[in-house]
Amino acid sequence: MNDPASYTPPKVWKQEESNGGRFANINRPIAGPTHDKELPVGKHPLQLYSLATPNGVKVTVLLEELLAAGHSGAEYDAWLIKIGDGDQFGSGFVDVNPNSKIPALLDRSGDTPVRVFESGAILLHLAEKFNAFLPTDSGKRPEMLSWLFWQMGSAPYLGGGFGHFYSYAPHKIKYAIDRFAMEVKRQLDVLDRHLANNEYMCGDEYTIADIAIWPWYGALVQNKVYEAAEFLDTASYKNMVRWTEQIAARPAVQRGRMVNRVSGPLNEQLRERHDASDFETRTQDKLEQASS
Amino acid sequence: MNDPASYTPPKVWKQEESNGGRFANINRPIAGPTHDKELPVGKHPLQLYSLATPNGVKVTVLLEELLAAGHSGAEYDAWLIKIGDGDQFGSGFVDVNPNSKIPALLDRSGDTPVRVFESGAILLHLAEKFNAFLPTDSGKRPEMLSWLFWQMGSAPYLGGGFGHFYSYAPHKIKYAIDRFAMEVKRQLDVLDRHLANNEYMCGDEYTIADIAIWPWYGALVQNKVYEAAEFLDTASYKNMVRWTEQIAARPAVQRGRMVNRVSGPLNEQLRERHDASDFETRTQDKLEQASS
Repeated sequence: MNDPASYTPPKVWKQEESNGGRFANINRPIAGPTHDKELPVGKHPLQLYSLATPNGVKVTVLLEELLAAGHSGAEYDAWLIKIGDGDQFGSGFVDVNPNSKIPALLDRSGDTPVRVFESGAILLHLAEKFNAFLPTDSGKRPEMLSWLFWQMGSAPYLGGGFGHFYSYAPHKIKYAIDRFAMEVKRQLDVLDRHLANNEYMCGDEYTIADIAIWPWYGALVQNKVYEAAEFLDTASYKNMVRWTEQIAARPAVQRGRMVNRVSGPLNEQLRERHDASDFETRTQDKLEQASS
Repeated sequence: MNDPASYTPPKVWKQEESNGGRFANINRPIAGPTHDKELPVGKHPLQLYSLATPNGVKVTVLLEELLAAGHSGAEYDAWLIKIGDGDQFGSGFVDVNPNSKIPALLDRSGDTPVRVFESGAILLHLAEKFNAFLPTDSGKRPEMLSWLFWQMGSAPYLGGGFGHFYSYAPHKIKYAIDRFAMEVKRQLDVLDRHLANNEYMCGDEYTIADIAIWPWYGALVQNKVYEAAEFLDTASYKNMVRWTEQIAARPAVQRGRMVNRVSGPLNEQLRERHDASDFETRTQDKLEQASS
């Protein structure tokens, strides 16, 4: 057995050093800024401060889909927030997202700039703003909302639970891995059964429910997060595999995945995005410049 | 040290017996129904299938607030779903919520009954339906959405993370308790700092953002979940304490907390709710009848 010996927590929790595994340096028990730093602002109505994690990719995919669908008001500047360096604790970022997580959006299209944080809120805000990637039949709005919120409430078990204990924690704890692996497999089965009878999450229309779910669960199926596809036997979820590949083939999704990406093959990285032409003019020189 | 010995996960995860702590019997690696069972349907437009966990309480609080504000269309039947008995795996329930979690809502007010699942989706659906408990200034909608989604993405670290490892897991695992205690304290600090300058989550208006956050984080502050108020030193979050008490004093909140409750003092339990008068006619006899 791998169960640890009995442990009695103290009366009052206190932070100790060197606990937390990978990313321990960016987890803190307090909120608020650690340093003064203004955020850059570009020329477009929408200013995105993000990184190409699954939560970040949701928003860049939607923005690229909106632009591909002709909504020129969705032009955006995507600024890189290096969470490993603590950029999310800069005062300017905290003003836009007091929760210090990416993605965060500043919508400057109105009279007063408006902040939006939490990827699900940003998706709904943008979809409603452009009246796009929502079900055209308003009677299906509750179904879309249900799956959009499902993703927000479920993915913490995938990311903060399974991913952490399977990939990032300093020790492999069997109990925690079992707990979260079981839940993630259940979630995959929920999706798989639904997609057996539905082309997309809300039937025959591609909506922000798909755009919310794909970057997490599609990445799991494609073995792009946690290297856990075999462990979770994701190939057995046939409808999930079909849906994952269908969405992955969309050009806007391929562009969205590249924005604010700082790892993987260089030709899949566009560290910052300030113009639609950036996808074409991207070169290794430019990447090196951007990182200097 | 309480860290477990090194463990090498298998190539492919498999379910084992007797792993999971309290609630192990209702956690499964697959989705779908386990048995055929139709759901009861009452006389009101809204049929709620739930239990008075924090996620369930969100919805009954909003429904009681809507009724108190004069929205008679919000009359509802609240049916008890005993999750310990596996009611959420009945075929009728799975049809309303394929994710097999409470709360689930069947909205029968239109031509076709519509399902809504995930507490955040139900809150937004009902608030939009009655145009109530949303910011009156539509410019504040993004702020409301941000905090509503913040709650959905954050509370899994409180419930499925901290609460599980601090209270329910069969062994106390120091690493997991530390990880999630730190995150929950950070979340409390996010709220506390925001509430230092805001009466409610969206400024001076009480909205569904408050109704989403209070049943989890207010319950933590009031020591009503996990008995962790001292461990997390919740009293030190002064603005959270002020806000928690302010909302707890609302009569609709007090009614909402009672609906579908099956634990605690009998005078705080209303196991099912089918009429506004149920709060007055509730007696111990009735409670015993309902449980027979």
